[in-house]
Amino acid sequence: MPKYKITIEYDGSNYVGWQRQDNGISIQEAIENAITQLTGEKIIIFGAGRTDAGVHALGQVAHFDLKKIFNTDNIRDGLNQHLRPQPIAVLKAEEVGDDFHARFSAKNRTYEYSISNRRAPLTIDKNKSWGVFKNLDVNKMEFESKHFLGNHNLDAFRSAHCQSKSAIKTIDNILIIKKNENISIRVSAKSFLHSQVRIMVGTLVEIGKGKIIKSIKRIIEEEKRSQAGITAPACGLYLIAVEY
Amino acid sequence: MPKYKITIEYDGSNYVGWQRQDNGISIQEAIENAITQLTGEKIIIFGAGRTDAGVHALGQVAHFDLKKIFNTDNIRDGLNQHLRPQPIAVLKAEEVGDDFHARFSAKNRTYEYSISNRRAPLTIDKNKSWGVFKNLDVNKMEFESKHFLGNHNLDAFRSAHCQSKSAIKTIDNILIIKKNENISIRVSAKSFLHSQVRIMVGTLVEIGKGKIIKSIKRIIEEEKRSQAGITAPACGLYLIAVEY
Repeated sequence: MPKYKITIEYDGSNYVGWQRQDNGISIQEAIENAITQLTGEKIIIFGAGRTDAGVHALGQVAHFDLKKIFNTDNIRDGLNQHLRPQPIAVLKAEEVGDDFHARFSAKNRTYEYSISNRRAPLTIDKNKSWGVFKNLDVNKMEFESKHFLGNHNLDAFRSAHCQSKSAIKTIDNILIIKKNENISIRVSAKSFLHSQVRIMVGTLVEIGKGKIIKSIKRIIEEEKRSQAGITAPACGLYLIAVEY
Repeated sequence: MPKYKITIEYDGSNYVGWQRQDNGISIQEAIENAITQLTGEKIIIFGAGRTDAGVHALGQVAHFDLKKIFNTDNIRDGLNQHLRPQPIAVLKAEEVGDDFHARFSAKNRTYEYSISNRRAPLTIDKNKSWGVFKNLDVNKMEFESKHFLGNHNLDAFRSAHCQSKSAIKTIDNILIIKKNENISIRVSAKSFLHSQVRIMVGTLVEIGKGKIIKSIKRIIEEEKRSQAGITAPACGLYLIAVEY
């Protein structure tokens, strides 16, 4: 059976998240429906990252098996046709080997969080960025962010709903870029805990506001969710790339 | 009577344009309503650029007179409060001299047009950029764009609805920047004809596709709308700055 890998972009604003759920339409379901419409086959797709409701993607990856062979350009263009007018697009479709798994074969995932640090409410970037009114000390945020690098128990940075057995994760990269009022926080790791990036960002923002004065180093060491900051809103988060 | 200048950002997708009209809500009307709610005064505001339906702004400017004196920070924050949840925000409010006029005192206006040159439909940038599927020759577009610089009769680049007596305009600057699949075209001039930027962009895109082979130089000289390209969609256009 041929196996296909697709790279997907979406505006997650009006979806219940990546994963199929009973309470509304998910990205997964929308794409599965499009595949069925295109191929006549009823299938399940597997995504690299289970993005939450409201979270966006520039480079989500998923795989699925089909009984028949399809040209990859036709998969891409055909799925996009059936996905219209939903804000979900297949950027690329490739045939992959039998051992490929979008979730388990991933070597690295990169998320980017977008903050607009300004007094005025957001208009064009509404639901696409987190509007933070109070002026942030970005140098302090950047300094503190470096404590995340490396291998740590991140119990303080996962949601109560997180089902991972272990909270030990390795963060390979964290980069904060400020350009005028826009601050982006980019984080790369093999895998993440539930809400991890959003809690990391919420904590960094509260440090930038001067509301949290404890160092990230200490917060990590104490392993208590109560010591970290708020969970940043979903709308600022983007799954931007998955490497295999 | 104190006179105030406000700098405004908006997502024009769901508005009939800047100017008050009978067929729907305009940006002007939304802001006038907010001013009345904040100050109790019924006033008319004057904008620097009459953006069309669907056109956005990062730096539209308007002025208005009030009977009472207001603190400019209160004008900014108060208007933003009354404008919520509409995607219109006042970035800045300033008191200006009696001779200031948002439209007539403007020395320079800059528009930016955003194109996404890719096969996949737009998702996150839906209604915020023009998705052009066919691969564009950006070098050719850039070369041709330079013919717009300077003082010309731009009859070929104005809509049939344009009410300007003269089509003679001076373009001070035109800059095309390509970054991955995103192409932005930035144009500065003291003033513009109706739909001018959109027709300039539509023509450049058809040149980039190889659909128009005539040079911009010739199209300008012939002064015929039929020789220029299509009017690019409103959703890619942003009024980004007005200088005084």
